[in-house]
Amino acid sequence: MDRLIEAIRAKKNPTVAGLDPKLSYIPQSMLNAAYSQYGKTLEGAAAAVLQFNKGIIDALASIVPAVKPQCAYYEQFGWQGMRTLEATIRYAQEKGLYVILDGKRNDIGTTMQAYAQAHLGTTEVAGQALPAFAGDALTVNPYLGADGIEPLLPVCKRYDRSAFVLVKTSNPSSGELQDRTFADGKTLYATVGGLCEQWGADTRGEYGYSRVGAVVGATYPAQLAELRRALPHTFFLVPGYGAQGGGAKDVAPAFDERGLGAVVNASRSILTAWQKTGADERDYAAAAAKEAVRMRDDIVSEIGGIR
Amino acid sequence: MDRLIEAIRAKKNPTVAGLDPKLSYIPQSMLNAAYSQYGKTLEGAAAAVLQFNKGIIDALASIVPAVKPQCAYYEQFGWQGMRTLEATIRYAQEKGLYVILDGKRNDIGTTMQAYAQAHLGTTEVAGQALPAFAGDALTVNPYLGADGIEPLLPVCKRYDRSAFVLVKTSNPSSGELQDRTFADGKTLYATVGGLCEQWGADTRGEYGYSRVGAVVGATYPAQLAELRRALPHTFFLVPGYGAQGGGAKDVAPAFDERGLGAVVNASRSILTAWQKTGADERDYAAAAAKEAVRMRDDIVSEIGGIR
Repeated sequence: MDRLIEAIRAKKNPTVAGLDPKLSYIPQSMLNAAYSQYGKTLEGAAAAVLQFNKGIIDALASIVPAVKPQCAYYEQFGWQGMRTLEATIRYAQEKGLYVILDGKRNDIGTTMQAYAQAHLGTTEVAGQALPAFAGDALTVNPYLGADGIEPLLPVCKRYDRSAFVLVKTSNPSSGELQDRTFADGKTLYATVGGLCEQWGADTRGEYGYSRVGAVVGATYPAQLAELRRALPHTFFLVPGYGAQGGGAKDVAPAFDERGLGAVVNASRSILTAWQKTGADERDYAAAAAKEAVRMRDDIVSEIGGIR
Repeated sequence: MDRLIEAIRAKKNPTVAGLDPKLSYIPQSMLNAAYSQYGKTLEGAAAAVLQFNKGIIDALASIVPAVKPQCAYYEQFGWQGMRTLEATIRYAQEKGLYVILDGKRNDIGTTMQAYAQAHLGTTEVAGQALPAFAGDALTVNPYLGADGIEPLLPVCKRYDRSAFVLVKTSNPSSGELQDRTFADGKTLYATVGGLCEQWGADTRGEYGYSRVGAVVGATYPAQLAELRRALPHTFFLVPGYGAQGGGAKDVAPAFDERGLGAVVNASRSILTAWQKTGADERDYAAAAAKEAVRMRDDIVSEIGGIR
């Protein structure tokens, strides 16, 4: 997690821009150009998405420490979408950005190892180690227990990567299972949180945080505060700021006294800033940058800076 | 779920062949041919996997009703692997096979909708509905609650598809969370099972089973029997037979009195049959077919046939 934390400190910005590019967010002229070159096809759509993402990345690279592509929005365009995902990751990393792949992957044993290779490490082909998607971090789902998390750890150590485990998600129905209380008095989310501390225990870095982070939604500030206290070595990825309704006051409990401990995500509010502000479509990236700066300042002033 | 059940009845076979193609399962001559054409690259590996899968599908198409590609083994070869996944799905469907995509996807709202479009439905590009992966069923993870399942249902209804929700998985650490008992006396897996009945309630088909199935491992036969009794409208996908240790006696409790209610998966034991039996590598597909027939006969005789 140290690389992410250092990027946050360098840019004095504890936020991450989600790259969830729906076609409806993309300027029409950009869509038209891609369709005229590749047809009104999955390939054409994927080409437009890549163009859109590059503009966003160029505009945000000096502002945010990290971007978070959401795999679903690439998979919906088939393998052509996955090619755009790979190109987006490479482009962002070339621009110095830390890439959190939001895939919420989960499986067991050698299958989970294949996901780790795909999204964080390399795949061996005829004795060579080849990178596939090679993000810097991957979100994962804990429902399968340790068998779904442990295969990530050797890959994270070898390639200096991290994982974020879903703990308390930002959606309205997250409590349906996560808030239920077990016979021992602990909720499911608190139990998973405790496991994150355990799973990450031997990977703690310079700032005290391990390679096993947690996803904790901004829309549940009380649980966010509870989990921050209970999980001193677990770095948080906090979705739910902005379009989902969370504000700077809601995310503040995620941070430690140094202003570290969490990175807050916003996707829609950044990508659609040009539409919300009525900007010309050619200025979509500038509008995104302006919203990213506003979000940074909003959160940094609330938490009293990053030390 | 009716299409799957009809395929099971037509072939008198309640099993599904997992397509989890590790490179070590593939005959060396097939790997060499792909590497000499495309290089020792992700593209070369993905080409070998497609060739291997086509041989398996040709050999199994008259025996099994369904195949289950595991997404992780395709994602590890990047977008080239996803292109092979797409081509594998198309090839299997052309051969009359029902395709269960094992992606264990999970997210919320419009993001989950994008996964549904990607893996079960179509994606809209400039007013056209284009298929991306377009499997017949998708495995999904319930940790996020209803917000992660409900977006699947309109897509399932519209395109005649189904989903299988992880309930009680086959791995050793599945109990770490799933077996814990809530304050109301129900385990997490039983709670999720109950939600499957609820989520699927208005999608029941001709045989009484809904479009919302459940993944329940063969390695926990007592829980399998408990869940079969508790969830009369939920069709089961049962992993863990064969290489993971489950036998015909272990999977028998998954079936109803008609010999329906479940489809049992085996991957490794089928794909590596040629290596286990010492067959010539040119006969890998025939060895897979022989193992698939053995598995079918083993299970069908244990459950007393399919009616």
